Amino acid sequence: MSPTAFQVYDTTLRDGAQQEGINLSVADKLSIAPLLDELGVGFIEGGWPGAVPKDTEFFKRAAKELDLRNAELCAFGATRKAGTRAADDPQVRALLDAETPVVTLVAKSDIRHVERALRTTGPENLAMIADTVQLLVREGRRVFLDAEHFFDGYRFDAGYTRSAIITALESGAEVAVLCDTNGGMLPSWVGEIVTELRESTGDGLLGIHAHNDSGCAVANTLAAVAAGCVHVQGTINGYGERTGNADLLSVLANMEIKLDRPVLAAGSGGLSEMTRIAHAISEITNISPFARQPYVGASAFAHKAGLHASAIRVDPDMYQHTDPATVGNDMRMLVSDMAGRASVELKGRELGFDLADRPDVLSRVTNRVKDAEAAGYTYEAADASFALLLMEEAADGRPRYFTVESWRTIVERNGGKGAPASAEATVKLTAGGERFVSTGEGNGPVDALDHALRQALARVYPELEDFVLIDFKVRILDSQSGTGATTRVLIETTDGETSWSTVGVGPNLIEASWEALTDSAVWGLHHRGIVPR
Amino acid sequence: MSPTAFQVYDTTLRDGAQQEGINLSVADKLSIAPLLDELGVGFIEGGWPGAVPKDTEFFKRAAKELDLRNAELCAFGATRKAGTRAADDPQVRALLDAETPVVTLVAKSDIRHVERALRTTGPENLAMIADTVQLLVREGRRVFLDAEHFFDGYRFDAGYTRSAIITALESGAEVAVLCDTNGGMLPSWVGEIVTELRESTGDGLLGIHAHNDSGCAVANTLAAVAAGCVHVQGTINGYGERTGNADLLSVLANMEIKLDRPVLAAGSGGLSEMTRIAHAISEITNISPFARQPYVGASAFAHKAGLHASAIRVDPDMYQHTDPATVGNDMRMLVSDMAGRASVELKGRELGFDLADRPDVLSRVTNRVKDAEAAGYTYEAADASFALLLMEEAADGRPRYFTVESWRTIVERNGGKGAPASAEATVKLTAGGERFVSTGEGNGPVDALDHALRQALARVYPELEDFVLIDFKVRILDSQSGTGATTRVLIETTDGETSWSTVGVGPNLIEASWEALTDSAVWGLHHRGIVPR
Repeated sequence: MSPTAFQVYDTTLRDGAQQEGINLSVADKLSIAPLLDELGVGFIEGGWPGAVPKDTEFFKRAAKELDLRNAELCAFGATRKAGTRAADDPQVRALLDAETPVVTLVAKSDIRHVERALRTTGPENLAMIADTVQLLVREGRRVFLDAEHFFDGYRFDAGYTRSAIITALESGAEVAVLCDTNGGMLPSWVGEIVTELRESTGDGLLGIHAHNDSGCAVANTLAAVAAGCVHVQGTINGYGERTGNADLLSVLANMEIKLDRPVLAAGSGGLSEMTRIAHAISEITNISPFARQPYVGASAFAHKAGLHASAIRVDPDMYQHTDPATVGNDMRMLVSDMAGRASVELKGRELGFDLADRPDVLSRVTNRVKDAEAAGYTYEAADASFALLLMEEAADGRPRYFTVESWRTIVERNGGKGAPASAEATVKLTAGGERFVSTGEGNGPVDALDHALRQALARVYPELEDFVLIDFKVRILDSQSGTGATTRVLIETTDGETSWSTVGVGPNLIEASWEALTDSAVWGLHHRGIVPR
Repeated sequence: MSPTAFQVYDTTLRDGAQQEGINLSVADKLSIAPLLDELGVGFIEGGWPGAVPKDTEFFKRAAKELDLRNAELCAFGATRKAGTRAADDPQVRALLDAETPVVTLVAKSDIRHVERALRTTGPENLAMIADTVQLLVREGRRVFLDAEHFFDGYRFDAGYTRSAIITALESGAEVAVLCDTNGGMLPSWVGEIVTELRESTGDGLLGIHAHNDSGCAVANTLAAVAAGCVHVQGTINGYGERTGNADLLSVLANMEIKLDRPVLAAGSGGLSEMTRIAHAISEITNISPFARQPYVGASAFAHKAGLHASAIRVDPDMYQHTDPATVGNDMRMLVSDMAGRASVELKGRELGFDLADRPDVLSRVTNRVKDAEAAGYTYEAADASFALLLMEEAADGRPRYFTVESWRTIVERNGGKGAPASAEATVKLTAGGERFVSTGEGNGPVDALDHALRQALARVYPELEDFVLIDFKVRILDSQSGTGATTRVLIETTDGETSWSTVGVGPNLIEASWEALTDSAVWGLHHRGIVPR
């Protein structure tokens, strides 16, 4: 990559990992890096060798185990300590020992931080920048300089902040990256400051590193690019401390799709792999994906408005800002009480039921959905229950894998507060021509029922053992009725390949849960192609 | 409010409710509206009377039951149908029948949508706008016109789009609101288009309604305001279809804190109530708060960096973009936590416990709260449970009205789907020196336990008969653990004069409910001044 081409710099593994709830192992980082490379970013910041032992190990193993096609690995670290020589600073030494082609140095550029946090003088801080950059360049490294608190510093004392940037560039840094470390900037401010700074930086390359504390990280990044920055930093899914960093995915999609500026490596997966990669990384970080995340969220192209459903069917482009396929996502129609026949028809088609020339069936299904939603059901998050309803009305009925005779659950506690409570459940049913009675225990009554049901079916349908409940939600619909209120239960199940959701409703929470549990088993068996035995 | 002052328009109840997973009852809407009013917004869009039966009912009940101090209620609806008279259109009639001071009309402004979705002509669409606006104005309504797909329309055919805006303003609309319905705009585009449009709109007031599909809704809103819009629309927590609407909270905080432009009603709770209100509304929508949400998120002012911890303690302003107290949030240190004491002390004082000169007790309570919150408890919405905790640490312990020996609940169904399920519960306890064994039935296990508990205590504490459970909420905390997840139960009880809330947490939903039920009985008896018998 030529040094003057546009630079996409990912810091998920370092700054992203600062997020509350994220704790990446070396193995996690080694799994994430190839995904970033596939996406086509130019640079991957791996961590802070020397300061963080896990990161030292990451760079060692990365050199042996990773085979990156598009991206260069970057080690992150600080300028030398005040009053020392860069060559003698063990932290700077560790940066060289990481043997990455790029080193990203963080330096203070806000005079208040120099004096109050670093407890040194303005001139010494500039010398620290110059010495460290020069040493690394002499040792053959490309050096990026992250100017911490740049924007706050510039608004307080532009002169000093500017001199930190100029020192870095004149000492050989390839790019000076302007950091909104506290994340409080607005796009108009960023645009003005970058434009003004560029009057003194000549041909020096500038980058942008934004945080989302004012909800403008993506826009701030774009404003900096419009003002001349040629290097953007960000993280996948906007991970990061506090409100997170700029979501690199939104930045990239906006640049390539909206601003028509290709920035990902040619021949990489590129935008069309974005949704898959975003979700794969959230599996590794174990942070639930945010449904409303731009471009890649599960809801990003989901339409609820019944009003528009018929128009959307005819002309989808009129109702979405971009084609979801461009970013590897899909349009979805949600069935809701605002919806009518058109959205039921669309949703049916998505699930493999063509109702276009079966108006009678379409009417019956639409009416059933309306009645059910009035009773508290919702199908927008329960595709599997909706598919079973469609099978009842549009096909030969739902498959009969088993017939329930009765179920019972008992929860009890002997003793006062602190004594252990226990939950057990008994299920009696017929399957494969045989009667089964099974008792299960669990953390609570629903867990116990789930165990009892699986146990009862295990001999006839061993496939059920692959199913795992991955989500369980309870919503009290009319909570003002107190403990007698109607309850809605949503359950999500996976078989390791796909996942499906079911819904149950009733005044009795346990009964509602049972409905969702049995629907989940039925749909799971059906979609695996298993016939009733 | 003078019509020319800056207008803050909340559409959580209408456009926010379009979000996947949100399903608001009339009671929910009636609970959310007063919170919006407290925040200090000028306008609350309540729904679409006529089109959505629940919304028709909302406006009826709102007129009787709500006492708003700052906000005007707005009914939302469409212009008359093509080829009819506005006065004969039942949908327009329903807007008048809602009897709100303001009506917000949605109209097409993109010629492609006029021709392909509405299937009428450009001139007829303009006539529909003119007729409907004029009729509503004649009937004494303030009219806001939401120009749907404005920005996409403008980029396709600026002339027609402009004529729709001018028609609305000339017909008497107080504000023409420019909608980025598909959410794909970037701030620079919004700024340019609004600036250009204003050359033809004279003194006409313009507003902005942004969606977040490119991750720029907040910035787009600010760009429109910078270009001259004087009316902003948005939703609490950025709720809305697909990626959501502009998060009104971020917009307001940016305007008031960063741009120094007070826009919330004077005398309202204002920004300092923002975090509390955001979380209270997420309890009602039952959408888990997003920890990384700007300003109000749990992580928004949380610092992980151990490196900076001491510097942050000395000089917090150097590490945060704004003082979290301004928006009612708190700084948190994730490694060495120092937050909490101040708010525990404050809350204690509120409940009648002066802990100012009892640092040891304050520490113990703060630590217990931290441990409890880490385990899933929340005291924000459970004052009574918090007061009991304070009594345990700061007074003589919680009053001992009764001692529980054991409880048990059984839920069962004999027969398949449709057969009735039954729930019963047995409670054994000692009160007033006597042992009671009581069995209750109910709609579900918690209802049955509630009945059994009251019955067992009725002879010794007949006062319990006055208590009524008025709210029951269940939140699955780590829902990814399926039916084995930790559950939080919140219960609100009233004695007809005041109401109080209690919380229970545990892997077993029934046990968590029992904890909240017994806390409720204990606090209720105590605050009525009853001594243990």
